Amino acid sequence: MAQPQSGRTIVSRPPVGITGNERMAALSDGIFAIVLTLLVLEIRVPEVAPEELSHALSEMWPKAIGYAISFVVIGLYWVLQHNMFQYIKRHDRTLLWLNLLFLMCVASMPFPSGLIVRYANEQAPVIFLAVSFIATGLSLDLIWWYASTYRHMVDERVDKTLIGLVHQRLLISLIFHFAAIGLSFVNVSFAKLMFILAVGLYLLPSRLSAYHHQESGPKQATRGE
Amino acid sequence: MAQPQSGRTIVSRPPVGITGNERMAALSDGIFAIVLTLLVLEIRVPEVAPEELSHALSEMWPKAIGYAISFVVIGLYWVLQHNMFQYIKRHDRTLLWLNLLFLMCVASMPFPSGLIVRYANEQAPVIFLAVSFIATGLSLDLIWWYASTYRHMVDERVDKTLIGLVHQRLLISLIFHFAAIGLSFVNVSFAKLMFILAVGLYLLPSRLSAYHHQESGPKQATRGE
Amino acid sequence: MAQPQSGRTIVSRPPVGITGNERMAALSDGIFAIVLTLLVLEIRVPEVAPEELSHALSEMWPKAIGYAISFVVIGLYWVLQHNMFQYIKRHDRTLLWLNLLFLMCVASMPFPSGLIVRYANEQAPVIFLAVSFIATGLSLDLIWWYASTYRHMVDERVDKTLIGLVHQRLLISLIFHFAAIGLSFVNVSFAKLMFILAVGLYLLPSRLSAYHHQESGPKQATRGE
Amino acid sequence: MAQPQSGRTIVSRPPVGITGNERMAALSDGIFAIVLTLLVLEIRVPEVAPEELSHALSEMWPKAIGYAISFVVIGLYWVLQHNMFQYIKRHDRTLLWLNLLFLMCVASMPFPSGLIVRYANEQAPVIFLAVSFIATGLSLDLIWWYASTYRHMVDERVDKTLIGLVHQRLLISLIFHFAAIGLSFVNVSFAKLMFILAVGLYLLPSRLSAYHHQESGPKQATRGE
Repeated sequence: MAQPQSGRTIVSRPPVGITGNERMAALSDGIFAIVLTLLVLEIRVPEVAPEELSHALSEMWPKAIGYAISFVVIGLYWVLQHNMFQYIKRHDRTLLWLNLLFLMCVASMPFPSGLIVRYANEQAPVIFLAVSFIATGLSLDLIWWYASTYRHMVDERVDKTLIGLVHQRLLISLIFHFAAIGLSFVNVSFAKLMFILAVGLYLLPSRLSAYHHQESGPKQATRGE
Repeated sequence: MAQPQSGRTIVSRPPVGITGNERMAALSDGIFAIVLTLLVLEIRVPEVAPEELSHALSEMWPKAIGYAISFVVIGLYWVLQHNMFQYIKRHDRTLLWLNLLFLMCVASMPFPSGLIVRYANEQAPVIFLAVSFIATGLSLDLIWWYASTYRHMVDERVDKTLIGLVHQRLLISLIFHFAAIGLSFVNVSFAKLMFILAVGLYLLPSRLSAYHHQESGPKQATRGE
Repeated sequence: MAQPQSGRTIVSRPPVGITGNERMAALSDGIFAIVLTLLVLEIRVPEVAPEELSHALSEMWPKAIGYAISFVVIGLYWVLQHNMFQYIKRHDRTLLWLNLLFLMCVASMPFPSGLIVRYANEQAPVIFLAVSFIATGLSLDLIWWYASTYRHMVDERVDKTLIGLVHQRLLISLIFHFAAIGLSFVNVSFAKLMFILAVGLYLLPSRLSAYHHQESGPKQATRGE
Repeated sequence: MAQPQSGRTIVSRPPVGITGNERMAALSDGIFAIVLTLLVLEIRVPEVAPEELSHALSEMWPKAIGYAISFVVIGLYWVLQHNMFQYIKRHDRTLLWLNLLFLMCVASMPFPSGLIVRYANEQAPVIFLAVSFIATGLSLDLIWWYASTYRHMVDERVDKTLIGLVHQRLLISLIFHFAAIGLSFVNVSFAKLMFILAVGLYLLPSRLSAYHHQESGPKQATRGE
């Protein structure tokens, strides 16, 4: 209610687009739910003689770890998009399509993931997966740029600092993905390590998270009950 | 609040039906999410020797492009239905069933899409896909006609000009789909070009979009924050 | 606001349970969306030589019709449950479980449907499908009885006449399903005709629909805009 | 409105986090819907000669019972999470991730379930399933501990008694799951009985349910209409 003025040059522009992003969120949640659930369907119950079951199961650990990592990675994109749409309150046709582009990247992710599990020591899957991550990250960053800067579809909590922190959070991981492509020409294992580092980066606490909570925490809390 | 009067002959009729289209939207979003996600499952990880992987992947480009086009086409129907239901605020039993008819068309679309990918040079898949597009387009147009004209289930922004623009936008692509059927007897490649043109048509900016924003933009924006 | 009194003996009881049925609706819509979409996945793109494609497609009509009928039947249960939850505004643990029981019946419906398509002239699939319909119908009726009569979880529009009309609409089709079981011992085709009649029954306009609209139409409409 | 004071030491802390758990709920409902529906897809229409169909169907009873039990077990986790999020009104990044952890456990449940159906008399599936239940239960309990005790993200109805009753309800079943692991070294059938007992426990009325209704019933009911 007390409008903060310092550094909030964005807010002075009138907001554009139509309110009501519920269905964009619902479509996104549906696609994420399906992708997350179908991952585990790749892990089939082994068809062996009962006395060989323990051995067959013990050989499935790489698949299980691959499943857990894939789940975390795709869950991460869900968290990133979820948090972004806490700020984006309006949309137009272009934003609907940018979100569909992001969802296309997410929905196609099981393919490079499956590739890297199946061909663990090859270069091609590393490049496919890195390109997939880069496309997904860029499309999500494009949504943020479009809604926060090119058009004004965000709520009053969003200022220039926050816009920058979100961009930084999305784009910094691309360094690791480009590094993975470069390293794949030298050593596939080092390249794959880059993917782990890129995910690990997001699991750490961030300046964005701190800024967000300092900003919105108290205001939201009073609205809470 | 200030009711515009000029050319708004529809609004004078009392609205009919029950408010609350959330579950119709939720069912639609669910079906779209599944159809969009299952498309990519058709692209299986190739099972070849590691040294043949690059070659196997390089042969998958047609499938990848087919996937992207299918995603855009089905995404397009989602955007069209999404935008239509920004205006439709009430429903009755008949509208529930018309929406189910539209969803049946959407859910069955992977079959003709798969057909045309598998049998690239045959006439029958072209006709199947054209008929599928025509049925989907007509069922969506039927929803609009029923909700806006036959019954009055739309909100106060909808006037005769908007009703006409939405019909025009939905029906104009049918020309291309009928042309695809006709051309399929002459040349399958020309016929398939019609599908691309029909989609391209929707990606261009439209008079409807401009009219919609002029109408709803300022009003919505003030509601925005 | 003006509380109608005549014949509304139910309303005098205080309502019980917790408001907020959104997640029960969301789970239901998700399950319906998946079941409706997976139906068509059973129709695989035929793998034949290109010159045999037309012939192969012409032999798929029974499957297409089976798909359309299954879609309509499951869509019908969605419409019935959707309309019922227009009235049910509260829930408790028991209602959550009754709804899960109904959803279990819905989710298992593809099995008897697939059975009857695959074994068109056998008695067993007819009995399986009839039992499946009876279980689904009874579980939905149980939800209505529990929410409207045993507990009081419905809104103020629900009176004794409406309660009776909903029961009648759900239970009358069971006559046809029991008849299908009986006829299956004599003639499988006659038995299958009963399923068509049971569905056709629901597609006709009903006293319930008329009563519902007379009740809620005007009140809702004023809320509409 | 009249704030009850006795024993409500939690409420005195200010609430933290952001309101709006709709998308967390939507993702959860989507994943539950898919897992629940995919269970039945494991039951394939048998491919036998028509005269052997009755025999083939009669041999499918164990699968049908396995399906029903799996549906009830996963439905149970939905009910538990659903009821928990009736109280949890806010979230932060950590809670999003704890919920994703819980959903990962739920989404992976079809694997140990399939294992125990396929290898009915082996020890390994019993241990897998028990570990799966323990992980799912603990992750759900972690959500509750985090939201109710470590941070304060719950509504004003939650006091120390309720916090304890929810923990008790979630953790008491773990005794049976640990017992199943222990018994699996002696007798696989006894171990599997533990799973049935653990589920049966949840289907009984509980002190939590009674407490919940005593608490929220009247307050909610007045909000009802």
